[in-house]
Amino acid sequence: MPKKSSNGSAKKKTYAYLGPVGTFTELALAQVIEAKGQHWHPVSHVQEAIDLVVSKKAFRAIVPVENSIEGGVSATLDALAAADNIRIYGEYLVPITFDLVARAGTTLKTVQTVATHPVAYAQTRKWLAANLPKHQHLPATSTAQAAADLLKNDLAQAAVSASTITNHYKVKVLAKNIGDNKNAQTRFIQIGLAGELPKRTGSDKTSVIVELPSDRPGTLLEMLEQFAARGVNLSRIESRPIGDRLGRYRFNIDAEGHLDDEAVAEALKGLHRFSPKVLFLGSYARADKEKSVHRGNNSNVEFSSADAWLKKLQRGK
Amino acid sequence: MPKKSSNGSAKKKTYAYLGPVGTFTELALAQVIEAKGQHWHPVSHVQEAIDLVVSKKAFRAIVPVENSIEGGVSATLDALAAADNIRIYGEYLVPITFDLVARAGTTLKTVQTVATHPVAYAQTRKWLAANLPKHQHLPATSTAQAAADLLKNDLAQAAVSASTITNHYKVKVLAKNIGDNKNAQTRFIQIGLAGELPKRTGSDKTSVIVELPSDRPGTLLEMLEQFAARGVNLSRIESRPIGDRLGRYRFNIDAEGHLDDEAVAEALKGLHRFSPKVLFLGSYARADKEKSVHRGNNSNVEFSSADAWLKKLQRGK
Amino acid sequence: MPKKSSNGSAKKKTYAYLGPVGTFTELALAQVIEAKGQHWHPVSHVQEAIDLVVSKKAFRAIVPVENSIEGGVSATLDALAAADNIRIYGEYLVPITFDLVARAGTTLKTVQTVATHPVAYAQTRKWLAANLPKHQHLPATSTAQAAADLLKNDLAQAAVSASTITNHYKVKVLAKNIGDNKNAQTRFIQIGLAGELPKRTGSDKTSVIVELPSDRPGTLLEMLEQFAARGVNLSRIESRPIGDRLGRYRFNIDAEGHLDDEAVAEALKGLHRFSPKVLFLGSYARADKEKSVHRGNNSNVEFSSADAWLKKLQRGK
Amino acid sequence: MPKKSSNGSAKKKTYAYLGPVGTFTELALAQVIEAKGQHWHPVSHVQEAIDLVVSKKAFRAIVPVENSIEGGVSATLDALAAADNIRIYGEYLVPITFDLVARAGTTLKTVQTVATHPVAYAQTRKWLAANLPKHQHLPATSTAQAAADLLKNDLAQAAVSASTITNHYKVKVLAKNIGDNKNAQTRFIQIGLAGELPKRTGSDKTSVIVELPSDRPGTLLEMLEQFAARGVNLSRIESRPIGDRLGRYRFNIDAEGHLDDEAVAEALKGLHRFSPKVLFLGSYARADKEKSVHRGNNSNVEFSSADAWLKKLQRGK
Repeated sequence: MPKKSSNGSAKKKTYAYLGPVGTFTELALAQVIEAKGQHWHPVSHVQEAIDLVVSKKAFRAIVPVENSIEGGVSATLDALAAADNIRIYGEYLVPITFDLVARAGTTLKTVQTVATHPVAYAQTRKWLAANLPKHQHLPATSTAQAAADLLKNDLAQAAVSASTITNHYKVKVLAKNIGDNKNAQTRFIQIGLAGELPKRTGSDKTSVIVELPSDRPGTLLEMLEQFAARGVNLSRIESRPIGDRLGRYRFNIDAEGHLDDEAVAEALKGLHRFSPKVLFLGSYARADKEKSVHRGNNSNVEFSSADAWLKKLQRGK
Repeated sequence: MPKKSSNGSAKKKTYAYLGPVGTFTELALAQVIEAKGQHWHPVSHVQEAIDLVVSKKAFRAIVPVENSIEGGVSATLDALAAADNIRIYGEYLVPITFDLVARAGTTLKTVQTVATHPVAYAQTRKWLAANLPKHQHLPATSTAQAAADLLKNDLAQAAVSASTITNHYKVKVLAKNIGDNKNAQTRFIQIGLAGELPKRTGSDKTSVIVELPSDRPGTLLEMLEQFAARGVNLSRIESRPIGDRLGRYRFNIDAEGHLDDEAVAEALKGLHRFSPKVLFLGSYARADKEKSVHRGNNSNVEFSSADAWLKKLQRGK
Repeated sequence: MPKKSSNGSAKKKTYAYLGPVGTFTELALAQVIEAKGQHWHPVSHVQEAIDLVVSKKAFRAIVPVENSIEGGVSATLDALAAADNIRIYGEYLVPITFDLVARAGTTLKTVQTVATHPVAYAQTRKWLAANLPKHQHLPATSTAQAAADLLKNDLAQAAVSASTITNHYKVKVLAKNIGDNKNAQTRFIQIGLAGELPKRTGSDKTSVIVELPSDRPGTLLEMLEQFAARGVNLSRIESRPIGDRLGRYRFNIDAEGHLDDEAVAEALKGLHRFSPKVLFLGSYARADKEKSVHRGNNSNVEFSSADAWLKKLQRGK
Repeated sequence: MPKKSSNGSAKKKTYAYLGPVGTFTELALAQVIEAKGQHWHPVSHVQEAIDLVVSKKAFRAIVPVENSIEGGVSATLDALAAADNIRIYGEYLVPITFDLVARAGTTLKTVQTVATHPVAYAQTRKWLAANLPKHQHLPATSTAQAAADLLKNDLAQAAVSASTITNHYKVKVLAKNIGDNKNAQTRFIQIGLAGELPKRTGSDKTSVIVELPSDRPGTLLEMLEQFAARGVNLSRIESRPIGDRLGRYRFNIDAEGHLDDEAVAEALKGLHRFSPKVLFLGSYARADKEKSVHRGNNSNVEFSSADAWLKKLQRGK
């Protein structure tokens, strides 16, 4: 629970994030301009961050949503699907670079056990196998916690952490940039309770979660045609098991454009009729600033002209 | 041009139809309840009938649109595509039965030349080949004219006409029901200038003419998806060359439902954006009275609920 | 029936065509290189031409198939759908130019009745309305017959015919090039009994007639996807009522490519499984010589590589 | 690396699985009939299991592929995508039931720290929050390891493990069946080097990994149409980031049917032409024994009849 200081800072807004200090999520939070000078509250689970938002103990939560090295992707997608009144207010890209860090005095040769989050471990496995072929892995709840624990106990001799970890803990770097994929990045989102939508910028994204009707084959195709018929491109589609039984999936979809783009609005209404359950997660500015264009004459101008045409027909003109 | 009588019948509304009296089109006109007691005006070309409507010399025109034996189908489709301000107000089905008729005193054995419209000739060719193997065909502008001419000159000894021709001309029947297809019927439509649409009955049809974008392959599929994405079934699709050069087609489409069905309205707006040219021809009651149902939860109730949902989202709820 | 000359020319092959001499169909026949010096046999109906082929009294038939001014398009499509063992061996384009012709001594002012085929009449209606506002139309079985009849009787004073009619009959030209559409052309096909297919040229067309399953909506889309899934473009699609009752259609389709293109072969096999009835009408060289390209890596080379890949998988490699 | 015993058991085949003994994966391995009496070799990572197969140190590997509570799903999908010569030979369903276990003498009240794998922790979070509101979570590499460690050190007082854990370790059960979802199950697969495919049973599944062309929008729809055009249903589709940069995905697909079903074979060949990269992962019997039926007349009998038809056409018949 966010602590409130005694000196009036209670008026600060609380931003929950996957902590502790030194995680990649904190680097994402640092990109949120409005969060500057506000209260940053580290938590240890995506679900916990979202719970704080739902219970209004935090104003917003910053959580990873794609290709995270601190886990949380499935957790985030599932938490979004379970919540009811949650919206995404922004997205942020963080480049992922790992260092191997240790207590002062440690050398690579003396490392027997390497602590880190399992996903970070998976992403540095090649380097570790080549350079520390006999090491053991000690799972940690985050890459930052792994580094912090080095200073508390000697269960491990080294940790795999974000390169920025040295800003927070007195650890030394044994090896730099040891990730298997040098271009890795993680996408984070800012989550809050439903409220006024971010304004349309022309470079927007709209996120929904859609379930498919189960009474006939071919419904995934039908669902995608709801977007295609309005010229709306998808920038991401990811299936997740619904969880009641194997073989049923929900789809997390990021579509190009804003709810104030008529093409997107009409596609969403189509989904609402088509799908047994569709969850709107928000319209927000794209981190990559690319323009959202709707194929096939589906701009707002063309929607408005089609509307005018139809109204004329209905009046018998 | 419609004649006006001197006794005040000028206030009668004029219904143009493919004549002369005794054609199948006249039988269709007899089904138009509002036309009873009005002025029935026979013409000899579909284009002429439509021209009378466009120039306001006729209130409505009755013309064949599908599977006609008096021709005029292509003519009707092309005339509809060329006009601008024309609407369909109703459709009518007429069963097609042909008789071979002749002047009094004629017997089958003495028939050498058979007069009739070329399409009627095509549809009775088997019977004629079997029963009059050596006959000649004399083309006529209509089946009724062929019968009428029997009483004026002796270019032909017999005519193929509608079974009801004996109501109009003193001809005798040499053979009954000689059509190759005993279940043949023709669909006729009532055409007028754009005006108030017929009310939605729940058993309606909406007709449009659509051209395809020519800049990429696969546009016919895309066009059909505009209907499919809103659950709108097509009861007819017919391609016609646009005529400027071979290889370009426009599509005459009858969709199930009325412009006041949201599914149809949205599909039409989609077509308006998609197509370089779309012509609305009207919404009107179906002759077969079958209900128009839109697949996949696309009733007006479901459209309205999707609208309400979206408006709530836009308000940030 | 083709006449056989007494001097041994019986060995000549018979080409039936829509006559008499002087029709546009004869101009198409003149494009058929192999027909030079063979026996050209004019007939008065498409069905008659096809019947001669079926009964082996003619080797081939030349008939119009699209945008004809001598009619026969519907007749051709329906005759092809009814026949069983018929193939298309080539296609030919003929530009359509109409002249108004008359007996020597006639002037435009003295023309009261104009004879011609109804479709030619429809295509010259604007000129005739402007220049002969009070004329009557006398239907003829062909444009050439209309001209021929001028020299036999005086039922008409002028005829609308092909510009080449003066090669065949002693008529004078009253007005040249009176068609409404100056770029009009008609497509003709060469029909024969099933036999060895024309060789693949790389610029080919394959024609089929397909019926749709009637047990569910959306089957037109499904049918088109059989082509789309193999990257096969359609150069023409035309619906024709099946004729047993209104509302059922068969589709005449020209697809780009040859039966020896794997993409076409696989699409046809897909149609055979999908459709209650599919009729193969032939693979033949395109009149416009444009290359037939199959989108999306569907060339024979790519088909063959996919085949090799699959066979390897099946062997457990 | 699998140990070889000195007494001749070296001839036993090695089955690698996610260990240690007592994991859910071991329960899956117990379902593999051919594995009875063979050498079972526990490993600690999916990648390690697969590496053993690739290097021929293990005959087969059993790994979780869907909804696992011991993680490994993403790891499995990514490992399959990276390998080249790997096939799936079978699938197995294991119901997931969790117990809270502890050393003898422990009571619920004395539990402060709960050890378990992070995914198992996520799936029992509700029960733990309600019954141990103040507990700490200690991450473990597996649920079985968490239980094993209870007997080695006192870092935790309790572990969340599979209900069968008591067969392997002397722990007592503090609470039974504490999972949030009482119907949870995990799907496991048997992996080996490419070799003879399992025989077609009529209840089969075929797995592939497909990348999409990146040069145009709408390719996901196009890809799905490769299956739809042959009537092949998908039982699962799951997107995974390709990993070179955000925004590019590969799709893990399970299709109904066997490579020896012509519908599946043709769909796969279509994918091979369409996709820049398609990986075949195998055809194998479905765990749920449901029949694989291909919609729209796409059985082998109908494929064979279409083949025969086409061959006849090619011979000019």
